[in-house]
Amino acid sequence: MSFNSFGNLLKVTTYGESHGTAIGGIIDGFPAGLQVDFDAIQNELNRRKPGQSKIVTQRKEPDTVEFLSGIFEGKTTGTSIGFIIRNTNQKSNDYNHNTNVYRPSHADYTYDQKYGIRDYRGGGRSSARETANWVVAGALAKQLVASIKINAFTSSVGDIFIDKPYQELDFSKTEDNIVRCPDAKSAEKMISKIKEIRKAGDTIGGTITCVAQNMPVGLGEPIFNKLHAELGKAMLSINAVKGFEFGSGFCGAKMKGSEHNDIFNADGSTQSNLSGGIQGGISNGMDIYFRVAFKPVATIMSSQQTINSENEITEITGKGRHDPCVVPRAVPIIEAMTALVLADFWLINKIRKI
Amino acid sequence: MSFNSFGNLLKVTTYGESHGTAIGGIIDGFPAGLQVDFDAIQNELNRRKPGQSKIVTQRKEPDTVEFLSGIFEGKTTGTSIGFIIRNTNQKSNDYNHNTNVYRPSHADYTYDQKYGIRDYRGGGRSSARETANWVVAGALAKQLVASIKINAFTSSVGDIFIDKPYQELDFSKTEDNIVRCPDAKSAEKMISKIKEIRKAGDTIGGTITCVAQNMPVGLGEPIFNKLHAELGKAMLSINAVKGFEFGSGFCGAKMKGSEHNDIFNADGSTQSNLSGGIQGGISNGMDIYFRVAFKPVATIMSSQQTINSENEITEITGKGRHDPCVVPRAVPIIEAMTALVLADFWLINKIRKI
Amino acid sequence: MSFNSFGNLLKVTTYGESHGTAIGGIIDGFPAGLQVDFDAIQNELNRRKPGQSKIVTQRKEPDTVEFLSGIFEGKTTGTSIGFIIRNTNQKSNDYNHNTNVYRPSHADYTYDQKYGIRDYRGGGRSSARETANWVVAGALAKQLVASIKINAFTSSVGDIFIDKPYQELDFSKTEDNIVRCPDAKSAEKMISKIKEIRKAGDTIGGTITCVAQNMPVGLGEPIFNKLHAELGKAMLSINAVKGFEFGSGFCGAKMKGSEHNDIFNADGSTQSNLSGGIQGGISNGMDIYFRVAFKPVATIMSSQQTINSENEITEITGKGRHDPCVVPRAVPIIEAMTALVLADFWLINKIRKI
Amino acid sequence: MSFNSFGNLLKVTTYGESHGTAIGGIIDGFPAGLQVDFDAIQNELNRRKPGQSKIVTQRKEPDTVEFLSGIFEGKTTGTSIGFIIRNTNQKSNDYNHNTNVYRPSHADYTYDQKYGIRDYRGGGRSSARETANWVVAGALAKQLVASIKINAFTSSVGDIFIDKPYQELDFSKTEDNIVRCPDAKSAEKMISKIKEIRKAGDTIGGTITCVAQNMPVGLGEPIFNKLHAELGKAMLSINAVKGFEFGSGFCGAKMKGSEHNDIFNADGSTQSNLSGGIQGGISNGMDIYFRVAFKPVATIMSSQQTINSENEITEITGKGRHDPCVVPRAVPIIEAMTALVLADFWLINKIRKI
Repeated sequence: MSFNSFGNLLKVTTYGESHGTAIGGIIDGFPAGLQVDFDAIQNELNRRKPGQSKIVTQRKEPDTVEFLSGIFEGKTTGTSIGFIIRNTNQKSNDYNHNTNVYRPSHADYTYDQKYGIRDYRGGGRSSARETANWVVAGALAKQLVASIKINAFTSSVGDIFIDKPYQELDFSKTEDNIVRCPDAKSAEKMISKIKEIRKAGDTIGGTITCVAQNMPVGLGEPIFNKLHAELGKAMLSINAVKGFEFGSGFCGAKMKGSEHNDIFNADGSTQSNLSGGIQGGISNGMDIYFRVAFKPVATIMSSQQTINSENEITEITGKGRHDPCVVPRAVPIIEAMTALVLADFWLINKIRKI
Repeated sequence: MSFNSFGNLLKVTTYGESHGTAIGGIIDGFPAGLQVDFDAIQNELNRRKPGQSKIVTQRKEPDTVEFLSGIFEGKTTGTSIGFIIRNTNQKSNDYNHNTNVYRPSHADYTYDQKYGIRDYRGGGRSSARETANWVVAGALAKQLVASIKINAFTSSVGDIFIDKPYQELDFSKTEDNIVRCPDAKSAEKMISKIKEIRKAGDTIGGTITCVAQNMPVGLGEPIFNKLHAELGKAMLSINAVKGFEFGSGFCGAKMKGSEHNDIFNADGSTQSNLSGGIQGGISNGMDIYFRVAFKPVATIMSSQQTINSENEITEITGKGRHDPCVVPRAVPIIEAMTALVLADFWLINKIRKI
Repeated sequence: MSFNSFGNLLKVTTYGESHGTAIGGIIDGFPAGLQVDFDAIQNELNRRKPGQSKIVTQRKEPDTVEFLSGIFEGKTTGTSIGFIIRNTNQKSNDYNHNTNVYRPSHADYTYDQKYGIRDYRGGGRSSARETANWVVAGALAKQLVASIKINAFTSSVGDIFIDKPYQELDFSKTEDNIVRCPDAKSAEKMISKIKEIRKAGDTIGGTITCVAQNMPVGLGEPIFNKLHAELGKAMLSINAVKGFEFGSGFCGAKMKGSEHNDIFNADGSTQSNLSGGIQGGISNGMDIYFRVAFKPVATIMSSQQTINSENEITEITGKGRHDPCVVPRAVPIIEAMTALVLADFWLINKIRKI
Repeated sequence: MSFNSFGNLLKVTTYGESHGTAIGGIIDGFPAGLQVDFDAIQNELNRRKPGQSKIVTQRKEPDTVEFLSGIFEGKTTGTSIGFIIRNTNQKSNDYNHNTNVYRPSHADYTYDQKYGIRDYRGGGRSSARETANWVVAGALAKQLVASIKINAFTSSVGDIFIDKPYQELDFSKTEDNIVRCPDAKSAEKMISKIKEIRKAGDTIGGTITCVAQNMPVGLGEPIFNKLHAELGKAMLSINAVKGFEFGSGFCGAKMKGSEHNDIFNADGSTQSNLSGGIQGGISNGMDIYFRVAFKPVATIMSSQQTINSENEITEITGKGRHDPCVVPRAVPIIEAMTALVLADFWLINKIRKI
């Protein structure tokens, strides 16, 4: 039982506080013999890192990953892969005012209650900085299941939604704009929205949609590790996530069976795909798609009432460097977690028949 | 790694096919010394069992659980608790027509592809009959965290929604009607809807809301086993579930931080509760609430095109006894899974401080 | 974390008290498609069961295993395999005198201290009756790795040892005598010894040697799940075991490197095999062999001083039906646990290279 | 499932190759609030590190551990504890001759067969350098169960044994000599023996005995995670170990029940302790003691025949810096692993009763 681990056969275990010495992790169960594309990994980290554009936090971290083991002459050896990302740009003084003040809708209060002690600098372990570890592991996992095409993108910011089904989008355009929305027109509106929100010292929520294409049949375990249950758990592990739906999702709950069933073609594919590529917890070869809801970032630049650890009422105003909308930077995180889930099940599936 | 297990310290492992000899499981990690209320367990099973009312399947199973170990003179002993539920009312002949035909939006095709073999009778392991095991384990877990009040209820059927916040509902009325909706007026409409759907040989989706009250602070592990991530995984494990949201959920994704933040009172409680009782993956003592989306049952009583294992196009019409709407019977399942998650974290939390 | 489970990918979880309703378990992770030889499983159970001969306990249990799931039309389906063995010949009254008396060198005292409650009938969960579950699981595992030849045998009883290396023994003769020693001359002496001991109301220890031949190369994980470490853990899980050694074992601790090293032949085999078929925790294709030490059974038929749960000094004399020497019945248990370990690593090894 | 992890609630996961950039690990599940004694940790590392005396390898590593997370202002915070030990004194050139030659009784051949690739420098992951990670984790675990007194010591080198029971030894003298034997007279003979062996370019085996005193009652889980089974697994994980016995061990296999049973005193202690402080897998409060057998180090300084990866016969002579006897440096490793096992069970035991 490890609560800083994710995955089963392919397992990543992590550590690190936002303003500690370093963050990092260990990837265990990775098969031997993969030629590692290090640039691809660093590229994913760069997509996630702060300071990339005007609509994300201006904190600058080089976020350079150093691999420490498990790779020899460029290839995985089958032994555990240790990696480390040094923290270099901590402005911990920005957080001194948080020493004993509980920021609203943050984890300060619950950590203190649970552990009786808390590294208050930048949220400590509760910071989304942790997700840089996940991006490293996910980028490696992606290389293991390279035939699967995983694409996430910003599907809404506040009340601005892409009004097209994903099949009409060109995923190669996702990186063309800073909000990571492949629909240029929607992207423009989203960016304006975020800029406006930031100017007001406020923050805004949004959703990300993720699509996995060219799926093999048979991934997922059918009872407690259903493919969508593991994807859901992975997504709900990401900071600020409040909801997960796949296939028809919440809309499916309003439908009739005669509308919702996906009729088979002779080759085993289906005419519709309200199932979202998963039946009985197992991939059926159709596209997997799901949607993830993010709440607005809790740190806002206006004053809010709160309490301190002595249960005294006080005021707090956000300092430090924060994202007005977490969604653009969460796109690579969602792809990474999806890759981890799929690679894990891909390994497991190799041993399900004699 | 066990894919028929759920939980960490409190772990339930299960087995059983819908039309096999029996289903059952093992509950491991249950502490010694609890006086077991067997009637309460059987009562939960009765809530879930088929044939209770006119809007659920008419299959009749006594669903009597027999405990085989781990309980001595009425008390848990700390050893593993084995239990068994015999299958008694299998009409397997109803399923002979399914031998090699893949029912649309069922798991027949994916099981065959994954394992190369499949117990086709009643869906085998993929049948929701498995959830009777979960209800047994959950009913026992409920007794471990008896101070927490867990209440689930039908919050929508098709497009009929309760139009009140849960705080205005009286949960003691949930069992007063066969659709398990504590709002009598909505219940009546839902029941009519289901009857109408059943008459048409069709099925309908719906949602269940679950509320956990009188919560202790500190449950949940903050990285990969966030309280809401485990709840989400638990819910997504239930047959026919397509989505999960907690607190503000998908609505939160449209909101601004200044609207969404829950302002603290001096005692650590919060004025609003858009967080849904969880901050940073850890319970904060406020009510936990979440919503689960169920698709319509895939087995409908009208003819549909499909394929068989030889990839030939054929026709299928639902036989057997099926639910026109799965939601009423899923209410106790959701409570059971919630109890399992909370009891597990309750145990874990005992060892987080020296 | 399950403390009634053994194995990783192939995992068995068990339950059951000696004088409860039943014992049983769940085998998870077993691949689909194996044609099960049920007779072979029952045969292993028969080897272990009580009442087979004059030198073992006269308790009579039919020990018939019933498979409840996971096998369809004679083949494994890849779903969890539940099984149950009903307890039928409990003479619990034999144990009434144990209600609150702690038998010396038994687990009565420690269970009571740990759990505050204890099923005192026949030792409850601490009884070696549990090992019938292991034999079922192991017998199935044997069929998965059928190419490996696993043979255990009694290598000593008290101070009577087989004085030949295992290579000179004919394992087909192990079942020819009731002590399960393939060397007829030694067997005779061992049987006389046990009869003499039983007549004196006493018990005697012994050792079992196990050999796995026709081993594939590559089984075992090299750090914390070394093949010999898992074998050692498996053996030390068996009731009454006090020691485990493999290859050169304790003798190896007296040797020099120049004597101990196994020199390679051109084909990768080695000239000697002091390594016991394992190098760096991984099988090298040579025979695996190890030796397991069993203490004498604690229940003796003469009077001993002891205490009760009120810490009062009292006397106890063994009643019930007990083995004068546990070793003959432990032979199939050791083979079963060996099969479980090897089958688990055999599955794992399938996914160690891309 | 992680094969580079040890423990259940208190879990350490490690990485690192002998001549890679660094080794390190993550300690998960450590409770919050412990004031860490960093000097005590470094002191344990110093006891294990190479180059301490004339009878161990002359490789010099500073072996300085850097903690990266999970500790704030000197106290554990309940989050995962990352640590790293940089490799600084790699003389990898010493190993160039091993590129494709398989050293006898090393893991070179089995790694290559299992993974198809191998970091040949210094044995890579199979090197005992890994155990430095274990010493770090164990030294921290020791602080969690500080009331238990854990003492390991060299009990034999080759055929030189201490001829006293452990009760007559003064453990405070273990560090008084370089062979770590608390009996000065035996120590002297052992040191001479090792010097003589080293001069001959050879190596020698030995045994270590470990004693845990002031034990709480109730540690250990009674079926598959018996206290002695976990200790055995831990010990068998250490490089070069060939055997494990506890309490009466292999001698117990020659005894009669009437001799072997430990008779209770009124306070629950026992008059003898052949059980080795464990009954039914659970500690009974008496001393735990066990003995571990180490084979001679496989790298010897004389020429041996071997093969290379092309299956050609060749010759090899040990280069590099190696231990003539591994036992003195293994003493702190055994204490560390014992501490890990005991601390893990100590945590688990907190939740076994309601």
